Amino acid sequence: MNGAAYEPRRADYEQAVRTSFDNQGMMHHIGATMTVIEPGYCEIHLPYSNKVNQQHGFFHGGVVGTIADNAGGFAAFSLLAEGDGILTVEFKVNITAPADGEKLIARGRVVRPGRTLTVTTAEVTVLKDGEQSVCAIMQQTLMRIVGRVDVVG
Amino acid sequence: MNGAAYEPRRADYEQAVRTSFDNQGMMHHIGATMTVIEPGYCEIHLPYSNKVNQQHGFFHGGVVGTIADNAGGFAAFSLLAEGDGILTVEFKVNITAPADGEKLIARGRVVRPGRTLTVTTAEVTVLKDGEQSVCAIMQQTLMRIVGRVDVVG
Amino acid sequence: MNGAAYEPRRADYEQAVRTSFDNQGMMHHIGATMTVIEPGYCEIHLPYSNKVNQQHGFFHGGVVGTIADNAGGFAAFSLLAEGDGILTVEFKVNITAPADGEKLIARGRVVRPGRTLTVTTAEVTVLKDGEQSVCAIMQQTLMRIVGRVDVVG
Amino acid sequence: MNGAAYEPRRADYEQAVRTSFDNQGMMHHIGATMTVIEPGYCEIHLPYSNKVNQQHGFFHGGVVGTIADNAGGFAAFSLLAEGDGILTVEFKVNITAPADGEKLIARGRVVRPGRTLTVTTAEVTVLKDGEQSVCAIMQQTLMRIVGRVDVVG
Repeated sequence: MNGAAYEPRRADYEQAVRTSFDNQGMMHHIGATMTVIEPGYCEIHLPYSNKVNQQHGFFHGGVVGTIADNAGGFAAFSLLAEGDGILTVEFKVNITAPADGEKLIARGRVVRPGRTLTVTTAEVTVLKDGEQSVCAIMQQTLMRIVGRVDVVG
Repeated sequence: MNGAAYEPRRADYEQAVRTSFDNQGMMHHIGATMTVIEPGYCEIHLPYSNKVNQQHGFFHGGVVGTIADNAGGFAAFSLLAEGDGILTVEFKVNITAPADGEKLIARGRVVRPGRTLTVTTAEVTVLKDGEQSVCAIMQQTLMRIVGRVDVVG
Repeated sequence: MNGAAYEPRRADYEQAVRTSFDNQGMMHHIGATMTVIEPGYCEIHLPYSNKVNQQHGFFHGGVVGTIADNAGGFAAFSLLAEGDGILTVEFKVNITAPADGEKLIARGRVVRPGRTLTVTTAEVTVLKDGEQSVCAIMQQTLMRIVGRVDVVG
Repeated sequence: MNGAAYEPRRADYEQAVRTSFDNQGMMHHIGATMTVIEPGYCEIHLPYSNKVNQQHGFFHGGVVGTIADNAGGFAAFSLLAEGDGILTVEFKVNITAPADGEKLIARGRVVRPGRTLTVTTAEVTVLKDGEQSVCAIMQQTLMRIVGRVDVVG
């Protein structure tokens, strides 16, 4: 159990989240995978490659923000009812250490689910030589939208 | 003149910024170009493609954040002395409208240049059918680092 | 004209904003006054006193954030229709310089007015010996609420 | 034990933090007390009064931000060496629920202590009829300053 104990509003929440994630061209393009999805919790892994790095051989800060944003967004999406989608209103990321390693792991958690707005946090760790260390934390606001069945990244 | 009137600390600031930008694999990979660089101001353009979109055919929110982060970072870098680099400490993005169009334009401006910390803002507009409209605003903190001559995205 | 050219949705917007401001016990208590209110723009002044300082004789950072939050909130409130209120969802403040002076001046502007969410920015300057200098910038999200005719600070 | 296990850099960290807190006129003025201080962790309580409320009888959002800012700042200060002070660079607060109750409790934790910059988070709960519920979360950056032995709020 990775987040607070939330009750999903639809039985097929996992499939709904995975379908939405699979439709995000950018996530596919950079090689990100969703490894865990639970009600109010989402984990995304991203292996290192030259598509996501910067000039020093670390993961690009923008990519760190992108997968944190996505982990929070899909954590929020997992709690929606059928027919609802979700939209990032804003997010704020602190880069706490260089993202130097073989893999990024973003863990998004719903802090406050709401009828209109949902607040999440995410932690991003980088895996190097078998050790994980935190490289970023995020705080995010999302808005439920009706009639667009997706995470709108 | 796009920003406040700052004096650059090195004559070759433009070349220094452009070299750093060109070394960012990710920016190159997604097709971003730096169209304007002035002391304390930077403009980055990104054409639409399937490398940067999400499932509804808009630019991905993470990409919007990434080029805002970069525009602010290079605006800050333009004011550094030779031998100094700059690092994103944190940024916060509000997505104010869907990024629906042919091109994203991020304009980063230094608000407060500092010995240790620099504060910037950025505005991202999306160009559609010849019209630009704002789709995101950003507020960012960066830290000067000595001995790493780059923007560390 | 201090902000973008917005059309107010009610003729008596100024009176509505001022009434709401006057009802905020805390603003009254610390001596803050609303000096300008226009559609989408609000200016608040706060004189220095021992109610709002910290241990070095500057304005307290929390107070800087509070009047920035309020200036943004009342700027947003000025564009609402009768019967609507507004609620701070989140705000982010960069303290760019010590707030050292006789008076704080916060200027809030609506960047994106929306049916549900409004995005604002604010700049806080400090007046010392007749000179104003920027000491903080803010970015904020607010939500319209129906049936509570106020800014809910 | 409320935070991660940090080693303080001075034996008298608790006294140093409490002295700094006691010198903050504003905290004293509104009736805030520091109930817990541990290395990297700080808890501040604030009883309800007409000095800190808004027009609906809740705690003012600016006050919620102020004590969150302070709880994070003193958590960071607890890890400093003698002779060092700390300064808020920026903070971002999400108001997740109205602060309706008899007492606010802010808990600040150091997430990443650093030589120059420290990152913290804080959670604010409101106590009503014996029950605590979360009303805000904060993410914050602070900078160590040499030669000013204080938290500079």
